[in-house]
Amino acid sequence: MTEDSKVGTYRFVAEPFHVDFMERLTMGVLGNHLLNCAGFHAADRGFGIATLNENHYTWVLSRLAIELEDMPRAYESFSIQTWVENVYRLFTDRNFAILDKDGKAIGYARSIWAMISMETRKPADLLTLHGGSIVDYVCVKDCPIDKPGRIKVSHPELVGECQVKYSDIDLNGHVNSIKYIEHILDLFPMEMFREKRIRRFEMAYVAESYYGDTLSFYREQTGENEYDVEVKKNGSEVVVRSKVIFRD
Amino acid sequence: MTEDSKVGTYRFVAEPFHVDFMERLTMGVLGNHLLNCAGFHAADRGFGIATLNENHYTWVLSRLAIELEDMPRAYESFSIQTWVENVYRLFTDRNFAILDKDGKAIGYARSIWAMISMETRKPADLLTLHGGSIVDYVCVKDCPIDKPGRIKVSHPELVGECQVKYSDIDLNGHVNSIKYIEHILDLFPMEMFREKRIRRFEMAYVAESYYGDTLSFYREQTGENEYDVEVKKNGSEVVVRSKVIFRD
Repeated sequence: MTEDSKVGTYRFVAEPFHVDFMERLTMGVLGNHLLNCAGFHAADRGFGIATLNENHYTWVLSRLAIELEDMPRAYESFSIQTWVENVYRLFTDRNFAILDKDGKAIGYARSIWAMISMETRKPADLLTLHGGSIVDYVCVKDCPIDKPGRIKVSHPELVGECQVKYSDIDLNGHVNSIKYIEHILDLFPMEMFREKRIRRFEMAYVAESYYGDTLSFYREQTGENEYDVEVKKNGSEVVVRSKVIFRD
Repeated sequence: MTEDSKVGTYRFVAEPFHVDFMERLTMGVLGNHLLNCAGFHAADRGFGIATLNENHYTWVLSRLAIELEDMPRAYESFSIQTWVENVYRLFTDRNFAILDKDGKAIGYARSIWAMISMETRKPADLLTLHGGSIVDYVCVKDCPIDKPGRIKVSHPELVGECQVKYSDIDLNGHVNSIKYIEHILDLFPMEMFREKRIRRFEMAYVAESYYGDTLSFYREQTGENEYDVEVKKNGSEVVVRSKVIFRD
């Protein structure tokens, strides 16, 4: 198998209701596309949710880091490439490149996934799955952005609170990974998105939250353009952590 | 021009993060697809936003009514047909059929649009646009659901309030038509969506709301499975009205 054939490439168009008031694709929609590409790529190679579900396993997103020089504009076409960088016993690293309409890389993303049993919720051993054949898809391709780091909110300030509603919940019965992204970006004032752009966005998915949970959003500014966010459910347990780095 | 050639047909797949906890496509995502299909269909025929914007005009959605017997499930393919039913001086009626993976109609939708000048915000005369050629696209095709009716909330009960945030705002700088749908469905408890399904959903877009506005959601139950909703901004002006009819 050549390295090229291990990379999946998927084409998109920035739909008019998927861009923000600056006419740039929203981070939530980009995140959704990344997760879909991961799904397409895995499904095409026999590791998709549909196949796994038959065996009572499912993929769980643990970390996501996105770094961007630019974002597709309304009506522009763009494409996303994805490939598997590493497979460990309990985790796999999947990377992405975001290419503009001319095929130029305008961003990259890194993600870390585990596979769990839907019955026990315990992690599965990726190296024995399908006779270890997932390892055959490991691909050498450059992804020139930092790995997801550790996010620690030392001096949290409560900046928002919301109750989990119907639209937040996905087919797994817990809050949609993408909805957290929207809720976190909604903590920032409109002017931030007018004057600045997101250079790097990180999510660490720590626990699940459910319908009716109260989510509290704590934020700490850690640099001129850098913010750490921690989301807790029902006043205690950390659900997700996030780092948002803007640039002027 | 044959009647068939006046109908645009667009294929979709129900993405995993676009379905709810019952694994059915969400009304918001369906609404987004309908609006996109309207855009594709108009653009292909020279009445799209891109063309109009050059002339400083844009389409404004006034009413939307969707009636469904079924909803696509996660990973299922489906398609949407759209056509122009009528053109009046200030409004045009655009209809839709939602077809399941086997091409069977599982729902229909009706929408009413106006065209406005982006400078004066005043409505344009559709019958003189492009020499009145939009009339050539009027198509005779069955749409067996009621037209959008008048929604009147006589005994409103305040059931929710939220502030308009970054993620609510679209490329026009006002609250996304689809976000209202999500906010309105979020007024209902999860059990409603577990036990019932939406048979008919109507939206009347009355005024625009903006970043920072406070939206108040008033609801009145008008039948066993029927609810009228009115959304006001900043305690006074009506922004949208909606009717939600469930079935057991």
